[in-house]
Amino acid sequence: MELHILDHRLRVTSIAKSGLAHFTHPLIKLIFLRHRTRCKFFSMTETPENYTVVLDEEGFKELEASSQLQVEGSVWLPLNVLSDATASLGLQAVGVTKIAESVIAPLARQHVSVFMLSTYQTDFILVREKDLPVVVGTLEEFKIFREVGGESILVRGHDITNGLHNNGKEAVPAALQPVLIPQNRFCVMSLDPDTLPSIATTLIDVLFYSGRSDIDGLQCRCPNTWWRCSSRPSVWRRSPKQDEATSPSADLDQIKFFSFSLIDGYVSLVMDTDAQRRFPADLLFTSSSGELWRMVRIGGQPLGFDECGIVAQISQPLADCDISAYYISTFSFDHALVPEEDIARVSDMLHKQRTDPSTG
Amino acid sequence: MELHILDHRLRVTSIAKSGLAHFTHPLIKLIFLRHRTRCKFFSMTETPENYTVVLDEEGFKELEASSQLQVEGSVWLPLNVLSDATASLGLQAVGVTKIAESVIAPLARQHVSVFMLSTYQTDFILVREKDLPVVVGTLEEFKIFREVGGESILVRGHDITNGLHNNGKEAVPAALQPVLIPQNRFCVMSLDPDTLPSIATTLIDVLFYSGRSDIDGLQCRCPNTWWRCSSRPSVWRRSPKQDEATSPSADLDQIKFFSFSLIDGYVSLVMDTDAQRRFPADLLFTSSSGELWRMVRIGGQPLGFDECGIVAQISQPLADCDISAYYISTFSFDHALVPEEDIARVSDMLHKQRTDPSTG
Repeated sequence: MELHILDHRLRVTSIAKSGLAHFTHPLIKLIFLRHRTRCKFFSMTETPENYTVVLDEEGFKELEASSQLQVEGSVWLPLNVLSDATASLGLQAVGVTKIAESVIAPLARQHVSVFMLSTYQTDFILVREKDLPVVVGTLEEFKIFREVGGESILVRGHDITNGLHNNGKEAVPAALQPVLIPQNRFCVMSLDPDTLPSIATTLIDVLFYSGRSDIDGLQCRCPNTWWRCSSRPSVWRRSPKQDEATSPSADLDQIKFFSFSLIDGYVSLVMDTDAQRRFPADLLFTSSSGELWRMVRIGGQPLGFDECGIVAQISQPLADCDISAYYISTFSFDHALVPEEDIARVSDMLHKQRTDPSTG
Repeated sequence: MELHILDHRLRVTSIAKSGLAHFTHPLIKLIFLRHRTRCKFFSMTETPENYTVVLDEEGFKELEASSQLQVEGSVWLPLNVLSDATASLGLQAVGVTKIAESVIAPLARQHVSVFMLSTYQTDFILVREKDLPVVVGTLEEFKIFREVGGESILVRGHDITNGLHNNGKEAVPAALQPVLIPQNRFCVMSLDPDTLPSIATTLIDVLFYSGRSDIDGLQCRCPNTWWRCSSRPSVWRRSPKQDEATSPSADLDQIKFFSFSLIDGYVSLVMDTDAQRRFPADLLFTSSSGELWRMVRIGGQPLGFDECGIVAQISQPLADCDISAYYISTFSFDHALVPEEDIARVSDMLHKQRTDPSTG
C-alpha cells in the first residue's frame, strides 16, 4: 500500500452559526467561482454547533479575521492511502475501516492527532505538519510519497524502517467518548463539477440559508429516544419551529448535518435524505443507487484537537466487524457514517464497548 | 392614459463598493431565493461609484445597518403609466421619451423629484410618498389608480381636475448637467424567472465578484475621448489593470454599469456587450435581437435627490426628436440609454443644448 502526503497545507476553521452571513462572500467564491481562486482544497460541513471549514492556505486568505471565525493553530497535511487495485475490487469494507489497523491505530498509539475527512472519492487523514516525522516513522508498512508540484517523490519505501518514533508522550488511550445516533439517513454523493452551476441556487439555499441557531439545528422532539453512551447529562432543546424544507418525519431526532467538499476538482456531498430531495435527482450520483448511511456522532463535549485515539475507538471495532464507514471530523465533534443495515450491530457494539470494560 | 400608483413602499439605498461583501448574504437571498423573502420589488445597479439598491420595505429589512450602507431618507412610491393599447402598437418612441411630456415635464415644473427606473418590461417613475398629493394634482390628463392588495382603486379620473398644486417652491429649472457618453454598447434583456437558477453562478460572478474600487470601474485609457458637456474639470484615472473578463476592445472609455431587477416576478437586466457574452445566449432575450443602446450619463458631481428637472432635461429633447430611451437613476448619477444609431443625433442635441442657451 502507498501513503501519499498531498501537496496542500490546510487550516481547520470554524464559523459561528450566527456569523455565516459575514462569510457568504468568500465561501461562495470558493465553492462556485473556481476561476477566481487558487484554492484547491475546500470542505465545509454544517453541524448543529457551527460550520467547519477546512481549506488550503490560498483559500484561507479569503477569510477575513473575525470574532466569528475560530482557527485551529496548526497547519495540517492531508494523507491519502492508495490501496492495491486488487484489494479494492474485493468485497472488503471501505472507508475509514480499511485504514483502521494500518494507519489509524498506529498513529493513535504514537499519540498523533488525526482529523478525518471522508469524501465520496476517498478518505483524507489530516495530520499536523509538525507531526509528520512521527507519522512517517510510524507507518512502517507503507511506501510513502510526498506530492510536490504534481510529482510524487518517494519519502520512504516500506523496506526502510526507522522504527517507532515515540512522540515524546505516553501512549494513553483516549477516554471512551459518548456517542449519539440520530435518526436521519444520509447519502454520500458526487456530481460532475461542471454541473455545479446547475445546483447552485439549491446548494446556496441549503448551505447558507437553512441554518438556525446553535441548538435549533438539532431538532429533537423526544430527547429520550436519543441513544446515549454517556453518563454526562446533555440537554437538547426542541426546535420551536420546523424548517419548512424538511418533511414531517424530520421531526424526530434529526441532526442538522451537511457537508460539501471541492478538492482537486472533485465534488463530494454528504446530506440526509430530506436535503437530497431538494436537489435534482439526475445530477447527483452515488456509488450504488439508494445506498443509505446512518450516523454515529462521537463526543459529548466538543472534542478539541489534542485528544488522540478517538477515530481509533470507533474504526477498530468497525474493522473487527468488517463494517464500512465514512468518517468526518468537525471542529466540535466527529461523525462516522455506517451502512443503514449495520446500524443495529454498530449500536450494540458501541454499547458493549462502553458497558463492558474488557472490550474497551 | 392611466397612471398606476403601485403597491410598493420603496427605499433607495447605496452600498459602498468596498462594502459589498458584507451584503452578499442578504442580496443573494433577495435575488435568488424568492421562497425565503416577501420582497416583491428589488433592483440593484452597479456603477463605478457604488451599488444602488432599490427595494421594498420587506427587502430593506434584510439589509443590516452599516457605515457602508447609505439610505435616502424618504419612502418612494413607484408610478407606472399604462398607455392605450393602440398607441403602443405604433412606431412611436418608447421608454422615458413616451412619458416626457405627460409626466416628467409637469412634475419637473411642480418641483417634484423623480427617480426613474426603466426595466425591460416598463418604466417606473419613483416619487416621494410625501409628494403624492402634488403628483396626483399635477398629472391632469391621467386616470389615476392606486393599487392596494392586488386591486386597482380609482383615485382620480381625468375628468376631475383639481388644478395645479404648487409644491410651495418656485419652479426654477435645474442647472444643465454635464454628460458623459461612454463607448460601450448595452442591451436590455429579460429571462424567464424560472431559469434564473441556470444563470446564477454567472450572475453572482458579475454582480458580486467583478467589481473594483470606485475609480477603477471606469476604465479609461484616453480620458480625452470622453465627450464632456461640462466646464467643470473632472479627472478619470486609468484603470491599472483590465478586468480579465472584458475583451481588449473594452480598453477604451468603458463604463462599469450592470443593472438587475426582479420586480413582481419579472426579471430585467441591463448590461454591456462584454457582460452579455458571459451569459448563455439561449436564456436571455431582448425585444428585437441585436438591439443595442448607448449610454448618456448625466451629472458631473453626484446629483443627490433634491434637484428636480434632471430627467426632463434629457427626456424633453429626446421626445422632440422622437428617440426612445431607457432611463436608470442611481444614487449618484442618472443614465439614459438611447438606440445606438441615434447616439450621434443625441450627442449633437445635448451639445447644442449646452452651448446655445436658447435651446436650453
